Amino acid sequence: MFDFRTDLANERRDMYKKANNLEDEIPGIEAEERNNGRYVKVTKVKITTDEGAEILGKPVGNYVTIDIKLFNVAGEAEIQTAAETMAEELKRLINNFSPNKEDVLVVGLGNANVTPDALGSKVVSKIDVTRHWFTYMPEFTDEHTRPVSAIAPGVLGTTGIETLEILKGVVDNVKPKLLIVIDALASKSIERISSTIQISDTGIIPGAGVGNTRKELSQNTLGIPVIAIGVPTVVEAAVVAADGLDFFIDKMQQEGKSNDYLNQLKEEDKYQIMKEVLLPGDYNFIVTPKEIDELIINMTSVIARGINMSL
Amino acid sequence: MFDFRTDLANERRDMYKKANNLEDEIPGIEAEERNNGRYVKVTKVKITTDEGAEILGKPVGNYVTIDIKLFNVAGEAEIQTAAETMAEELKRLINNFSPNKEDVLVVGLGNANVTPDALGSKVVSKIDVTRHWFTYMPEFTDEHTRPVSAIAPGVLGTTGIETLEILKGVVDNVKPKLLIVIDALASKSIERISSTIQISDTGIIPGAGVGNTRKELSQNTLGIPVIAIGVPTVVEAAVVAADGLDFFIDKMQQEGKSNDYLNQLKEEDKYQIMKEVLLPGDYNFIVTPKEIDELIINMTSVIARGINMSL
Amino acid sequence: MFDFRTDLANERRDMYKKANNLEDEIPGIEAEERNNGRYVKVTKVKITTDEGAEILGKPVGNYVTIDIKLFNVAGEAEIQTAAETMAEELKRLINNFSPNKEDVLVVGLGNANVTPDALGSKVVSKIDVTRHWFTYMPEFTDEHTRPVSAIAPGVLGTTGIETLEILKGVVDNVKPKLLIVIDALASKSIERISSTIQISDTGIIPGAGVGNTRKELSQNTLGIPVIAIGVPTVVEAAVVAADGLDFFIDKMQQEGKSNDYLNQLKEEDKYQIMKEVLLPGDYNFIVTPKEIDELIINMTSVIARGINMSL
Amino acid sequence: MFDFRTDLANERRDMYKKANNLEDEIPGIEAEERNNGRYVKVTKVKITTDEGAEILGKPVGNYVTIDIKLFNVAGEAEIQTAAETMAEELKRLINNFSPNKEDVLVVGLGNANVTPDALGSKVVSKIDVTRHWFTYMPEFTDEHTRPVSAIAPGVLGTTGIETLEILKGVVDNVKPKLLIVIDALASKSIERISSTIQISDTGIIPGAGVGNTRKELSQNTLGIPVIAIGVPTVVEAAVVAADGLDFFIDKMQQEGKSNDYLNQLKEEDKYQIMKEVLLPGDYNFIVTPKEIDELIINMTSVIARGINMSL
Repeated sequence: MFDFRTDLANERRDMYKKANNLEDEIPGIEAEERNNGRYVKVTKVKITTDEGAEILGKPVGNYVTIDIKLFNVAGEAEIQTAAETMAEELKRLINNFSPNKEDVLVVGLGNANVTPDALGSKVVSKIDVTRHWFTYMPEFTDEHTRPVSAIAPGVLGTTGIETLEILKGVVDNVKPKLLIVIDALASKSIERISSTIQISDTGIIPGAGVGNTRKELSQNTLGIPVIAIGVPTVVEAAVVAADGLDFFIDKMQQEGKSNDYLNQLKEEDKYQIMKEVLLPGDYNFIVTPKEIDELIINMTSVIARGINMSL
Repeated sequence: MFDFRTDLANERRDMYKKANNLEDEIPGIEAEERNNGRYVKVTKVKITTDEGAEILGKPVGNYVTIDIKLFNVAGEAEIQTAAETMAEELKRLINNFSPNKEDVLVVGLGNANVTPDALGSKVVSKIDVTRHWFTYMPEFTDEHTRPVSAIAPGVLGTTGIETLEILKGVVDNVKPKLLIVIDALASKSIERISSTIQISDTGIIPGAGVGNTRKELSQNTLGIPVIAIGVPTVVEAAVVAADGLDFFIDKMQQEGKSNDYLNQLKEEDKYQIMKEVLLPGDYNFIVTPKEIDELIINMTSVIARGINMSL
Repeated sequence: MFDFRTDLANERRDMYKKANNLEDEIPGIEAEERNNGRYVKVTKVKITTDEGAEILGKPVGNYVTIDIKLFNVAGEAEIQTAAETMAEELKRLINNFSPNKEDVLVVGLGNANVTPDALGSKVVSKIDVTRHWFTYMPEFTDEHTRPVSAIAPGVLGTTGIETLEILKGVVDNVKPKLLIVIDALASKSIERISSTIQISDTGIIPGAGVGNTRKELSQNTLGIPVIAIGVPTVVEAAVVAADGLDFFIDKMQQEGKSNDYLNQLKEEDKYQIMKEVLLPGDYNFIVTPKEIDELIINMTSVIARGINMSL
Repeated sequence: MFDFRTDLANERRDMYKKANNLEDEIPGIEAEERNNGRYVKVTKVKITTDEGAEILGKPVGNYVTIDIKLFNVAGEAEIQTAAETMAEELKRLINNFSPNKEDVLVVGLGNANVTPDALGSKVVSKIDVTRHWFTYMPEFTDEHTRPVSAIAPGVLGTTGIETLEILKGVVDNVKPKLLIVIDALASKSIERISSTIQISDTGIIPGAGVGNTRKELSQNTLGIPVIAIGVPTVVEAAVVAADGLDFFIDKMQQEGKSNDYLNQLKEEDKYQIMKEVLLPGDYNFIVTPKEIDELIINMTSVIARGINMSL
């Protein structure tokens, strides 16, 4: 497999096409892109065959990326547009699995006491749950009401339990037909921090972004389809340094101050080398923007509204 | 059965003895009381036979009440004393069921976003969990390490799922040998608000105190023993009004201004009548002391330390 | 002066008229009432002469009360209606003092760490401040921009400084032409808790409602007009008990079980007597509804939007 | 003046000595260093003459740096040691100005709603204030009681008022003899983030670290001595990238892959060049460690205890 650094299917597609000088689409891949107003861009990559899956190193399925420009200064209008865009895309994926108002469980991953990791549990607290109405307030339900439940299971470090263990138990007892899982991710580039939402229908590996890989949450492990909504909220110092180095080599090349080693490095991934030089001093921190409190509040609004509108 | 208003086994015992002019202990009941310093009082009631259970209207088992005087102005020293007292009592109950460092799951009930109902989830965030060490950091464990896990399952209103359903699933997958459940309760008298901890080994009915009765959490429903730790943090307006009326009739009697109706009412429970007169205007609020933020912080310290010390 | 229990000018007016069997308006008083939709009621009392001031025991000035029905279940639409109503009334009072976009300072009183007392500081954090634009971003200002600043000075118990001392200093240096002060109040009846906003243009005494009377904030003490926005968020146990006793006597009278003493008490204020019977046991707690977190969030939205719209 | 990148007097001293191959102390400078246990290191630099002040580019005065190793995993014991160390150093500085229990005002700068900037306001909420006792509870005071007050004035962006304007007003009215000001700073190197406390007695420029320079708070502007306590909690992406580049050039040199340009750059500050390459894409974020919530909680404990012990 090609050595991709990014987790985003659309970035992998771009890299693969560029590296192979492809004009046409990759076999087994379909892609499209659209803008929703000035601030919101949607990129959709569909992996349709095993060949496509092997090329991009990701399972057959749908991958939607929503980029919100200038999210750090977004107002109510931008938040609402982003939420509507997300609802539209999410609805399409949900309908593939559950066109008939079947039971859905929304799961917010992450640690509620760690600001950049609190997105999942914050979204859960804003989901309009209805599942209990069928028992306790049947008068509020009709054939258009979808039973929605929501849970924030916490993280291994504070519960001592694998998220998969908790969810298996809950799924066995609650018996939803579909899971929607929200998690904060680590970004693989500076520019994605807190401005991108990824939606896919192939599951999620909690904590994957921050080096604490847990057991996969997917149809394979839980027996029901899993739609994952991920938002990059943190980034390793090595990523920041690698991006910086990349821009720096650019500048050196332009000014004729580069050398062969750097010219070659320019074509490669600088992340590993930066990790190597930062680790000895214990400086490969995971960092988050200073404005993370407000970014999480705004992103919670986008995702909670998006989910509520789509269900 | 005698019409008790209180849930506390020791108050029921007092009422029954007084009503029946008993000098000796009630058959099937054992009781003791001790002070720990000036601020902490422990009352233990043990129901040993079905006869005792029938008289007090509670299952056979242990009921420990810890009263902390002036908890609203408690400092670090009082908090530590209360925590140590609690640890001692809790340890005794735990050892009855699990003398050999078996797996324990701590469950914090309640809604993290409602200050007087956040006790359970706050305690859970301060529990020293160790269960995952056995897989991920076995070098930190030895034969004295008890596997401890902890979860805050949320409330029906925000999850759409019965607490019992979630816990059944978790217990089936995590397979603990004992559950310790923490919940905020409704007080049945003004003087108990946020100064009393009740520990019993006969399970708990979540939300019982606030009129939202959920399915019982106990050995019957979960298949493993359930130790319940409850703290009264709220009180109905009708309870405040009933206690006020009680003191008021006292005063009228002393001043010779009472009448037959009031004299008779004095001997009865005024709660029902106050509920009746407050409900039409929708005034039977559930209230909590103005200082609830600090009370919850202090009570969280007491209980989390108490549990951590005892495990 | 008539012995009023309430602080609300409109309740005092009602009591005085009833006690004196007045059909016509009280001399020196003007009053009007209107509904804004089904949920919002506005009552305006204007004290126009010293005679009126003496009768109602309040300074000459304007007193507006906004009642929001069912505020505990208010949605976005009710919040917006209430905010618009408030903005309209507030604007009128502001224009009396400052028709020409003069400098306004918004002051949020109270303790940010005590949920029912955090209203003022929460509102302040949502005020659109503009005063610094004139220095740092003059390109964002024009002749329609009013310089707005905002401060949350804290409470005596956590600062060690009288609010008046802090504000005097700030007013001397910032030189605003008008102060808008927000404070949480103690309610004098169960039904007002967290559903009423009072606006007056005669200043405020911080902490008055909770027995911690501080120095008055008003034109007398600060040299500029002070518009006060107050919201009852707490209530004494004695008030709850007194209201309960009142309803209880009603019921006894209807059932023919009252006596002379109670019949006479019915006409009087039961608050003092309830305070007397609760104090010895230290039971005259100040309490707040269990739902206070959400009530404060919603009330913050109403007031912050109302102020921002009116400035 | 020598082009120092750091604000820390002790780092400037090191750089100057190295650059000038000085064996002896710099004229007009006194310095000492000590460890307190394994985790805490104290470095003290005293600038005694105008010559020393000119060399280090800082006013005559005392500069104490406390480094806490592994603060991210600090437990209660390390926090207490750090607090005691800080109290000792702070007491010495306080006694220089106020040996006789004169009035002290503690000021917590920063924005309470931005986690990495909330340190100042959090510390203020834990200060034992006593100034109001002299009026309201004189029985709790004696000749050993120092009147302490505390205030969190907010930030220009949310108040619209310069911190200096607010403090001038408060100082004029409260008339303290000494100010202790706490602020979160920007770090000039990765390794200082959230593990260093700087104490100086020459005042502070709020927001200096994050490019929002405000008016200086010092004896010059406020008329009383100002002791500043600063903690680096954020860092620019350019600093991370510059540190990374520095380590990277090291590695290239070791591996013989460097060139003249890089060898020369090694001797210089890479911060400016990294800022240049990051700014065009708007990537020079200010970031903070992912664990900032807990770091702030622990640092608040250290500083609040340190101040309380020293007053």
